[in-house]
Amino acid sequence: MKTLFTRFPENPILTPQSISASSADLKIECLLNPGAFRYNGRTGLLLRVAERPVQREGMISFPIYDMQTGIKVIEIATNDPELNLDDPRVICYKGEDFLTTISYLLPVFSEDRIHFETDPAYGPLLGQDKYSAYGIEDCRVSQINDLYILTYTSVSPQGVAVGMKTTHDWITFEESGLIFPPHNKDCAVFEEKINDRYFAFHRPSSPEIGGNYMWLAQSPDLKHWGNHQCIARTREGHFDSARLGAGAAPIRTDKGWLAIYHGATEKNRYCLGAMLLDLNDPSILLARSEEPLMEPQEAYEMKGFFGEVIFNNGHLVNGDELTIYYGAADEVICGAKASIREILSTLDT
Amino acid sequence: MKTLFTRFPENPILTPQSISASSADLKIECLLNPGAFRYNGRTGLLLRVAERPVQREGMISFPIYDMQTGIKVIEIATNDPELNLDDPRVICYKGEDFLTTISYLLPVFSEDRIHFETDPAYGPLLGQDKYSAYGIEDCRVSQINDLYILTYTSVSPQGVAVGMKTTHDWITFEESGLIFPPHNKDCAVFEEKINDRYFAFHRPSSPEIGGNYMWLAQSPDLKHWGNHQCIARTREGHFDSARLGAGAAPIRTDKGWLAIYHGATEKNRYCLGAMLLDLNDPSILLARSEEPLMEPQEAYEMKGFFGEVIFNNGHLVNGDELTIYYGAADEVICGAKASIREILSTLDT
Repeated sequence: MKTLFTRFPENPILTPQSISASSADLKIECLLNPGAFRYNGRTGLLLRVAERPVQREGMISFPIYDMQTGIKVIEIATNDPELNLDDPRVICYKGEDFLTTISYLLPVFSEDRIHFETDPAYGPLLGQDKYSAYGIEDCRVSQINDLYILTYTSVSPQGVAVGMKTTHDWITFEESGLIFPPHNKDCAVFEEKINDRYFAFHRPSSPEIGGNYMWLAQSPDLKHWGNHQCIARTREGHFDSARLGAGAAPIRTDKGWLAIYHGATEKNRYCLGAMLLDLNDPSILLARSEEPLMEPQEAYEMKGFFGEVIFNNGHLVNGDELTIYYGAADEVICGAKASIREILSTLDT
Repeated sequence: MKTLFTRFPENPILTPQSISASSADLKIECLLNPGAFRYNGRTGLLLRVAERPVQREGMISFPIYDMQTGIKVIEIATNDPELNLDDPRVICYKGEDFLTTISYLLPVFSEDRIHFETDPAYGPLLGQDKYSAYGIEDCRVSQINDLYILTYTSVSPQGVAVGMKTTHDWITFEESGLIFPPHNKDCAVFEEKINDRYFAFHRPSSPEIGGNYMWLAQSPDLKHWGNHQCIARTREGHFDSARLGAGAAPIRTDKGWLAIYHGATEKNRYCLGAMLLDLNDPSILLARSEEPLMEPQEAYEMKGFFGEVIFNNGHLVNGDELTIYYGAADEVICGAKASIREILSTLDT
């Protein structure tokens, strides 16, 4: 099929080497899955930075946040009989699961939307409570008037849930705690109210009946959510056969809310698709991509920390031009552009 | 240990034979897990009735709600190669999971708190939307002033979630949709506001990191919930090693909120325990039973549709006397009494 998205020739635009680790003991393993926003005339990305301790021979070490002491590194002999390393992303020790890396969020800024740099005025956002002991990940940034709404995955021994904070100035933040309980991620708040209610996509997961489906919730105040509705399920044999989840906030178009989302197969191949939802009642799905709009194909998408992954949770709209920022192979950050009109033309309404 | 709860000598007080099935094609398999309330001078129980089609030789049949036609029975030849019956509670057909029974809620009333009967004025509450196609289960009934708040498990191909409806008269109900998305159950709303917020217990489950833990949420209006906090996790080697969940609304005492909860082991043995929570901030756990307060021991608790199960989600308080109603062996309904003061004395604060 015709390529809808044109990748930046500069890709990848950010790699683990682009920035410094938070301490000498730690190494940046991955830069990935940024939220995108505009602030004070500049384009901002809120990167997910995943760090891992520098490993020593015969030992395995991993970091967790400790509410008293900050980041704490736990080190275990690799021959410890209570250690289980069967899953490369997870360390199981004494029956408890830990992550190999810990993530935090880092804002970077650009004048040209391509070259991004940190700004000492705007520091990193770290996990800071018992619900983020294993880090915070994959933040969506929605903007309503001058309020920025940050919704992110908060990981801890209590589970994987959705946390929220808001800011006007990227310096002081109001914490809202967990707005969705475990197991949940991929939350993006709509950038305007509909019938006097806020709306958000989210992605609960079920250990039994059910699956990894896209849901919609409503709120009077952004902090309390209800009237949960399932808007899209996985589809056997499609690019979204095992799970799907929202990208950034949906885009208002004449035809409906256009949502760019990710779908993954049982083999963890992540592609992007689109769906169109009713403008007045976004629980009504009007159309959905049969084929992916964008799939892993470039070398930086095919190989990395976790290959064959394109994951998008930040974009900017300028008239008909959609610029997406995405994590490639769970390791580097890339950009691409598409025409919103052309994306809509692929959706059979 | 000393027996805290005195079982009703009349146990079981209700069995599948006590009431009639909703149609001639269906058979009541289990009566279980009632909510309890007082209304117009009588004691009410809101039973969970689980029905199954009468089975024919060589076929397996199960019911689902169809939004157009009501209850619909699906029948499949037992030798169909796309049928999988490995789990006795679940029928897997063409990759989709169905339940062997479908549940609805039925109010019954009593003058003496022991002998309960249906009342033609108060009909059953059925699943009625796409989130309850496999039924509604295990309803807690909380009362705030003259408002009854019904929170129940809503089961469908979309997952297992928490629905809510409210009533003043047990005849007309206001529907609130799903207040917690999948995977969630065991929701009980506190019967008064704390610091101008409603509170509820709930029990999300995680397919990965995390588990089946008891959580607390807050709401300004009962319909929208946020600030989710984990209040109690499973404990290895204890009666609540695999999962735990709230019973009915917690009981206000001088020492704190007393919550009777169920805990289950990996072998699905269900017992009752208690926890005490701070009156002003119920996210603070003050004490928790080390040993079960009540465990399956009577014949009607040890053998049934699913043996070794005591499950309580309804109680009434009269001064120091707590009367609990509970499902025994997932098949019959029983009652027991205890002194609140004696329960508190078992909790080490």
